[in-house]
Amino acid sequence: MDYPSKLIEDAVNEVAKLPGIGKKTALRLVLHLVKENENRTLALTEALNKLRQNVRFCATCHNIADDEQCAICRSHRRDHSLLCVVEETKDVMAIENTSQYNGVYHVLGGVISPMHGIGPSDLKIDSLVARLASPTSEIKELILGLSPTMEGDTTAFYIHRKLKDFSLKFTSIARGVPVGGDLEYTDEITLGRSITGRTIFS
Amino acid sequence: MDYPSKLIEDAVNEVAKLPGIGKKTALRLVLHLVKENENRTLALTEALNKLRQNVRFCATCHNIADDEQCAICRSHRRDHSLLCVVEETKDVMAIENTSQYNGVYHVLGGVISPMHGIGPSDLKIDSLVARLASPTSEIKELILGLSPTMEGDTTAFYIHRKLKDFSLKFTSIARGVPVGGDLEYTDEITLGRSITGRTIFS
Repeated sequence: MDYPSKLIEDAVNEVAKLPGIGKKTALRLVLHLVKENENRTLALTEALNKLRQNVRFCATCHNIADDEQCAICRSHRRDHSLLCVVEETKDVMAIENTSQYNGVYHVLGGVISPMHGIGPSDLKIDSLVARLASPTSEIKELILGLSPTMEGDTTAFYIHRKLKDFSLKFTSIARGVPVGGDLEYTDEITLGRSITGRTIFS
Repeated sequence: MDYPSKLIEDAVNEVAKLPGIGKKTALRLVLHLVKENENRTLALTEALNKLRQNVRFCATCHNIADDEQCAICRSHRRDHSLLCVVEETKDVMAIENTSQYNGVYHVLGGVISPMHGIGPSDLKIDSLVARLASPTSEIKELILGLSPTMEGDTTAFYIHRKLKDFSLKFTSIARGVPVGGDLEYTDEITLGRSITGRTIFS
C-alpha cells in the first residue's frame, strides 16, 4: 500500500506489530489519532511508556503488581495454603473474575515450548521450588491451572515431577464439557476426558 | 474488571479509547507490550508521537503530506484538470489503490453532519472554492467522491450548489450493484439507483 506520508507509514508499521492488528486496522487507528486532538495521542503514549517503564512484578508470585508484593499475596483474607500455578497475568485475572477461588497464585510467565525456544529455565519454576521449600511456606495444595494444550500438559508434567518430593496435594483444573456446551459438538478428546474424569453427582 | 495494577488499568483505558478496540482487546495488547522488550513500546509510542506532532497537510488538497504539498499535487504526471472531492485521507488511499484515477484530490476532512455538530465551515469547502477561483486553476471536471450516506449526499448537494457558478462538469462516482454482488441480495435503494443510473452496454 502507498502511504501519503512516511510518518504514517512508520506509525502503521509499529501499530501493526501488535498481536491481532493488521495493516488495515493499524491505518484506521493511526488516521483516527491524526484526526483527534494531539493530547489524545500524548495521553495514550504516556500511559504505555509509564506502564512499560514502571511495571513491577510481585516478588512472591510474579504477577504484575504496583508494589513489591501484589495485593493477592499481601492479603490476609486469602488462603495461603492453596496455590494455583498459571501461565500469565491474564489467567490470574480470568480466575479472579469467577470469584470462585480464594487461594494464591504463581505466575510462570509462559509454558515450556521447545518450538518457541522456551525451556524450564525461562519460566519461574525455580522460584516456585524455592517458594515451596521456604520454611514459612503454608502451601498444602498445588493446583495446576495451565492450558489444556501440549505445551501446558508438558509444563504441568515437568512441574509435577520437579515437586514430587514435597508433601503436597496436586490437583488440576477440571477438563470437561463447557457449561452450556452441547455433547454433540464437543470434540472427542474433551468428551473423553469428561468421561474418564467424571465426578460424583450431587 | 479488577486489574492487578493501576498502570495496567490506565494503559487499558487509554488504548480502549481507540475506535473498535474494547477493554478486552486493550488488555491483550497492553499485556503483550509488558511481555515484550521495553524498546518495542518505546518504538511504538515514538512513532505515534512523531506522527502526531509532525504530521502536515498538503496546502492545496489537505491530504496528509510529508512536505508543504503532497506527492499527488506536486506530480506533473497527474491530470490537474480532474478533481475528486473526498472526505478523508483513507478515501484518497482507497482510490489510489485502484490505479484507475489519474487526477488530483480535495480532502474535505469529513462531511456535513448536524448530529455531530459538523457544519460546512468545519470542512475545507472554502478552500475548495478558493482553489477553483484561482486564476491558475486548470480544473474542468469535479468528481464528488463522497460516501453514499445521508451526510455524504447532503455535503455533495451543498458543494454543488456552492460551485454552480463555476463552469465545471460535475460528476459523481457511480452507485450500483458491487462487482461480484448478487442482485437478489442488493438492497432496494442501491438496486434502484443502479437502474436509474444505468450505463450504455459496451
